[in-house]
Amino acid sequence: MKNSDSSRRRFLKTLALGSAAVSLSTLARCCATSAKPNILIIFADDLGFGDLGVFGHPTIATPNLDRMAAEGQKWTSFYAAASVCTPSRAGLMTGRLPVRSGMCSDKKRVLFPDSAGGLPQSEITIAEAVRQVGYKTACIGKWHLGHLPPYLPTNNGFDYYFGIPYSNDMDQIRRLSREEHTHPKVENYNVPLMRNEEIIERPADQNTITKRYTEETIKFIRENKDHPWFIYLAHSMVHIPLFASEKFRGKSPRGIFGDTVAEIDDGVGRILETLKSLHLDKNTMIVFTSDNGPWLPFREHGGSAGLLRDGKGTTWEGGMREPTIFYWPGKIKPMVVAGIGSTLDLFTTIAALTGAKVPIDRIMDSMDLGPTLFEGKPSPRDVMFYYRGQQLFAVRKGAYKAHFVTMTAYQKDNNRREHDPPLLFNLNHDPSEKYEISARHPEVIEEIRQIVKEHELNLIRGEDQLAKRINGD
Amino acid sequence: MKNSDSSRRRFLKTLALGSAAVSLSTLARCCATSAKPNILIIFADDLGFGDLGVFGHPTIATPNLDRMAAEGQKWTSFYAAASVCTPSRAGLMTGRLPVRSGMCSDKKRVLFPDSAGGLPQSEITIAEAVRQVGYKTACIGKWHLGHLPPYLPTNNGFDYYFGIPYSNDMDQIRRLSREEHTHPKVENYNVPLMRNEEIIERPADQNTITKRYTEETIKFIRENKDHPWFIYLAHSMVHIPLFASEKFRGKSPRGIFGDTVAEIDDGVGRILETLKSLHLDKNTMIVFTSDNGPWLPFREHGGSAGLLRDGKGTTWEGGMREPTIFYWPGKIKPMVVAGIGSTLDLFTTIAALTGAKVPIDRIMDSMDLGPTLFEGKPSPRDVMFYYRGQQLFAVRKGAYKAHFVTMTAYQKDNNRREHDPPLLFNLNHDPSEKYEISARHPEVIEEIRQIVKEHELNLIRGEDQLAKRINGD
Repeated sequence: MKNSDSSRRRFLKTLALGSAAVSLSTLARCCATSAKPNILIIFADDLGFGDLGVFGHPTIATPNLDRMAAEGQKWTSFYAAASVCTPSRAGLMTGRLPVRSGMCSDKKRVLFPDSAGGLPQSEITIAEAVRQVGYKTACIGKWHLGHLPPYLPTNNGFDYYFGIPYSNDMDQIRRLSREEHTHPKVENYNVPLMRNEEIIERPADQNTITKRYTEETIKFIRENKDHPWFIYLAHSMVHIPLFASEKFRGKSPRGIFGDTVAEIDDGVGRILETLKSLHLDKNTMIVFTSDNGPWLPFREHGGSAGLLRDGKGTTWEGGMREPTIFYWPGKIKPMVVAGIGSTLDLFTTIAALTGAKVPIDRIMDSMDLGPTLFEGKPSPRDVMFYYRGQQLFAVRKGAYKAHFVTMTAYQKDNNRREHDPPLLFNLNHDPSEKYEISARHPEVIEEIRQIVKEHELNLIRGEDQLAKRINGD
Repeated sequence: MKNSDSSRRRFLKTLALGSAAVSLSTLARCCATSAKPNILIIFADDLGFGDLGVFGHPTIATPNLDRMAAEGQKWTSFYAAASVCTPSRAGLMTGRLPVRSGMCSDKKRVLFPDSAGGLPQSEITIAEAVRQVGYKTACIGKWHLGHLPPYLPTNNGFDYYFGIPYSNDMDQIRRLSREEHTHPKVENYNVPLMRNEEIIERPADQNTITKRYTEETIKFIRENKDHPWFIYLAHSMVHIPLFASEKFRGKSPRGIFGDTVAEIDDGVGRILETLKSLHLDKNTMIVFTSDNGPWLPFREHGGSAGLLRDGKGTTWEGGMREPTIFYWPGKIKPMVVAGIGSTLDLFTTIAALTGAKVPIDRIMDSMDLGPTLFEGKPSPRDVMFYYRGQQLFAVRKGAYKAHFVTMTAYQKDNNRREHDPPLLFNLNHDPSEKYEISARHPEVIEEIRQIVKEHELNLIRGEDQLAKRINGD
């Protein structure tokens, strides 16, 4: 039953993709490459804008990522699709704002173990798109787009899955205190570790999980070295509770938070070595970014948004702007890119590189960043939408960001504020959103209001997937 | 009269230096280098910890400094000697806390055009020390250690001086408004530009001043290419009022602030090219840092301390921790150094490299950073003193910083606060000084109190130089 459903779904998706027009530039890029490039997305969890060495952290050492940034492109205005986990990942996977797929909600921030929903089967993931053009695909790490069988990675375009289906702080054996979260024990979190559709360990041994994700990635690369592959390596760190393997624990001056970042960075280094040893380094594009900003209420156990304001769960810059690196030796033009980009853009960018097709039967929010990556042209993206749940809180147009609604995450009092006129900031001059300038730029506010109007004209909100519960609700 | 004074002073200083013991490591380093290395200190003004690309700024482009950081050492806990201009520069020049030389005051923050004081003639500058071992020396840029004849660079060890004697916002033609400072006109600041002891331009044309500093530096390098040289290039930017030459004005997405940083960075690139073309690049150590943190009250016209707290004029980290790079291809071990360093250490570090002598007749606050720079060993510095004026506000010991007094700069209300027990922060875990932990570490506080006690035992406060005024006071 499950299999025939799955086949039918694949057939329908083939139709949706099959009719897609292939642009000339896509063709040109695809054919200029002798072999189809491998694609590796490394996605951290709750890593703040300021948590890498090359993004300014004084005591977190990330030599491998620093080198990738220096030799590749460091993007400094690159956004996750949302400020919390589930919608952010849905946006990356589909190239569509999560409000369209229903993967965001005003009732629940993310999916929980008792959630019955997940990424709707009608959505097309980047894994499905590249598999259709011959890629081997793996999802290694945290999924968080639905843990019931129809929603698992293996039903969403991935040939292989190894990881945890939702956040590493879920399935608590009882409601844990903050102290227990910041000085955690593996056995307090009954999170399953899965291989494909099977649970192979429960609770997942989180002490070694980062290391095992890296090892699984390396194994998949080795096994598919003669084949184009797409790997989505979504680390479950640096989300609370923090764990690092013995080699890293207690080593970073930044404490356990730094240990976990160092272990991720070390894994990046090991993957780079593997690629080199297999002569795949010149034919592999690596993207490093994170799903949302730092979880600030956990104080020094959470990360840092650097000079950006606020963090996870908010539509201030610290909630959604992520430390992002594109790396592909010899292909990517080394530079710092201050133009706007988003995880939403990975779908179309990767499709252009791999010859995969971009759906034309639905609205996509994804742009091909290739001209910036490979030719150093200005980023094609000029607008960014900041949703909280299903509500549009803020819009960026060029340098300017208008906040129609603001809310600080996790404050106990109701601190939701509507603003009319919206608060306006020039993010290029004032990345910390300190100096409000709406009175000086009514014309910018008018332009942004127009953008919102057009956006909402075409907006069909997907059915709320996050509110669905296993026992009904 | 002036000349004979000057000669006598030089003779006395020779005696003070002459008896200095030369350590074995100094000898080893000195003699391992075939030719004496050239030394270039590039000192920015009011540049914040977060104002370079490689220190995390999203919209300020500093490709040359970024590359130097990647290929050299990026120091992430490197401190100016004070949080305002005059004392900070006195500390760099002498390797001694400004409280010892009297170059800080509780009455005046810095020297002003009507000041009669300056760096006491009894102080020995690093320029004097290296000149004694055969170096040609130049001070190019802002001096601010006394503008009456006895205090000028040419009476403090420099063969050549080109620059302005104090800050670029002084000598205002009338008391200027904030608006006039942030949208400045050259003619509103009657600041003199000097060559040696002569005023050659008044008001200094600040539009071209950064460019001219770079050109003077390049000229001095060319003229002394067959001779070891020491250049102290102290840019007057990015201190308010901000000016950039035509090539850079209006170009940075960060606005005029970004333009000025870009022009400094471009100058760095031109100097690097010059060194390379003269085959001096492998025999020149470059140090880049700044005198104090960003001038925050000037809002987007001031800089950013990145993730650090507060800015210029305070003893919070944002006031004194500076984006610092050491660069010397083939000599310096490329790495990020999170250990403590200070501009105070440049004296002894440079003395060790050049064979110059470190005074032994006075207390020095300077340590040789050579083992870290050249061998990657941990920094020898473990303690940092944070003075405001003549008062010790805070002390760092290892990861911990204790604030005995705090004060936010420039707030109109009197916000000076004494703390007993002191506020305590773990700067490695919490560089933003957000999470106060004195209750958890009484033993650390005890240790720091002991350090203060020992420090004060040996402390002789120099006569306040900043309070002296030309017409008496």
